[in-house]
Amino acid sequence: MSGLPQGWLKYVQELEEILAQALPSAETYPQVLHDAMRYSTLGGGKRLRALLVMGACAAVGGDVQKTGGLAAAVEMVHAYSLIHDDLPCMDDDDFRRGKPANHVKYGEAIAVLAGDALLTEAFAELARMPEKYGVPPEVTVRIVAELAHGAGSQGMVGGQAVDILSVDQLPDEQTLRYIHTHKTGALFKAALRGGALVGGATAEELEAITRYAEWFGLAFQITDDILDEVGDAQELGKPVGRDQDLEKLTYPRLYGLERSRAMAAECVQNCLDILSGFPEGAWLLRELASFVLQRSF
Amino acid sequence: MSGLPQGWLKYVQELEEILAQALPSAETYPQVLHDAMRYSTLGGGKRLRALLVMGACAAVGGDVQKTGGLAAAVEMVHAYSLIHDDLPCMDDDDFRRGKPANHVKYGEAIAVLAGDALLTEAFAELARMPEKYGVPPEVTVRIVAELAHGAGSQGMVGGQAVDILSVDQLPDEQTLRYIHTHKTGALFKAALRGGALVGGATAEELEAITRYAEWFGLAFQITDDILDEVGDAQELGKPVGRDQDLEKLTYPRLYGLERSRAMAAECVQNCLDILSGFPEGAWLLRELASFVLQRSF
Repeated sequence: MSGLPQGWLKYVQELEEILAQALPSAETYPQVLHDAMRYSTLGGGKRLRALLVMGACAAVGGDVQKTGGLAAAVEMVHAYSLIHDDLPCMDDDDFRRGKPANHVKYGEAIAVLAGDALLTEAFAELARMPEKYGVPPEVTVRIVAELAHGAGSQGMVGGQAVDILSVDQLPDEQTLRYIHTHKTGALFKAALRGGALVGGATAEELEAITRYAEWFGLAFQITDDILDEVGDAQELGKPVGRDQDLEKLTYPRLYGLERSRAMAAECVQNCLDILSGFPEGAWLLRELASFVLQRSF
Repeated sequence: MSGLPQGWLKYVQELEEILAQALPSAETYPQVLHDAMRYSTLGGGKRLRALLVMGACAAVGGDVQKTGGLAAAVEMVHAYSLIHDDLPCMDDDDFRRGKPANHVKYGEAIAVLAGDALLTEAFAELARMPEKYGVPPEVTVRIVAELAHGAGSQGMVGGQAVDILSVDQLPDEQTLRYIHTHKTGALFKAALRGGALVGGATAEELEAITRYAEWFGLAFQITDDILDEVGDAQELGKPVGRDQDLEKLTYPRLYGLERSRAMAAECVQNCLDILSGFPEGAWLLRELASFVLQRSF
């Protein structure tokens, strides 16, 4: 978690506790499955998606304490997606966040199942929002729809499918855009829109948050590609240059490093412009946008 | 679908249409992913889980027309579970319902993703229940919780995990019970309880339906094991004797064929006894229980 601005830490720490509580304990039968679920979800990651949930809720003047369920759910979905992405039949990555990938530690079968269970548990956690967090049932149902859309075949999973199908093919800008807006962008968008809904956003606010989500997602993906090219393997917790090895489409390959950096900066500026009419509560979304440019992991 | 009692056919046909509508079309980008999702969900299977949803709703005097969303969702969850179960790292089955398994036809990566997307789409479909089927949001949230619990790490996925971990070990009755009550029974229970909730069940009715679910699940698993031993490979659409090859725990291995058959009959009798106080609307649940004993596929 080093490198995170100080003001975020308390949110991240709270989220860790919520996640640790929401997931079945490692003593719950079948232990190895729950251990595998916790291994890939707890104690690691930037918690960017959870912070986006909280940031969007705060930006529309909502009560951040109510976002715990959704914040935990998006982190579970993110964790599941990493487990499945790392599988030998997918990206075949043996390391994640500096640790052995889930399938290396638990075997492929348990890794598939741990991912499946985390995705399922995310929706269980959403269903607890009315009771645990006082989110009205009709808002909860809308959020289930947002998360399912963002994570599904026309969202994150669709992006991963196109990514897999594009390996060993020539880069093409349209495909690249699709992969990124879906593989990573769709879950960002669900997190942000969901957080805004928890916060009681007006239709106008929701629309603004949606545009923020789109620029944010693009900025994130461009810097991700840049880091893969020039980042520090140890800080990233995974080998660099993997995307190149796999002949994947990346922004630096398409536009070069300099132009890619300028594009990311433009996206972040757009995020800040969108928030210019928002009150003080939007500070976290502002910081998150700026963080994307400076991040080294 | 041959072998299904005539009275059920119209329900099954309606369900097929609901499913065909609920899933993104095969022309929706990314096409191969949506094609893979539809391949394993449409035009096959007994639709037992969907019928249990409808049967439970009717048994408590509810409007069966309102069950479409949940019926489609449980069939999507079932389809996803079969895709993932068949993967080389799991049961490694190349055939399912007489067709090549999803990963044989589309490759492992797309099969994993198609399963993930079906699970996600199931919850998207539940979120559509208030608008499409007039199910109140608070009931919808309860049903999301039921499905997530039945499909998750302490339900279906938990059962599959223990099944995988038990391969090559000596049969043990407690483990066998756990696998069956979870791997297949938990989703039956979610289907039945969810259907009863759609139908506006009282607490007492819900409790009775839950007990029905438990006996039904056990009866189903015992006959499943028996069919694996003595069934017709063509009618089953998969090779017989696989469980034996894999050294899996089965009822015939533990108790012999005769005693297993008697146990299944007892379970079905318990189902019928539970329904004895129910009105005419419970006919489908009665027939479904009896069907389990007679089924040959």
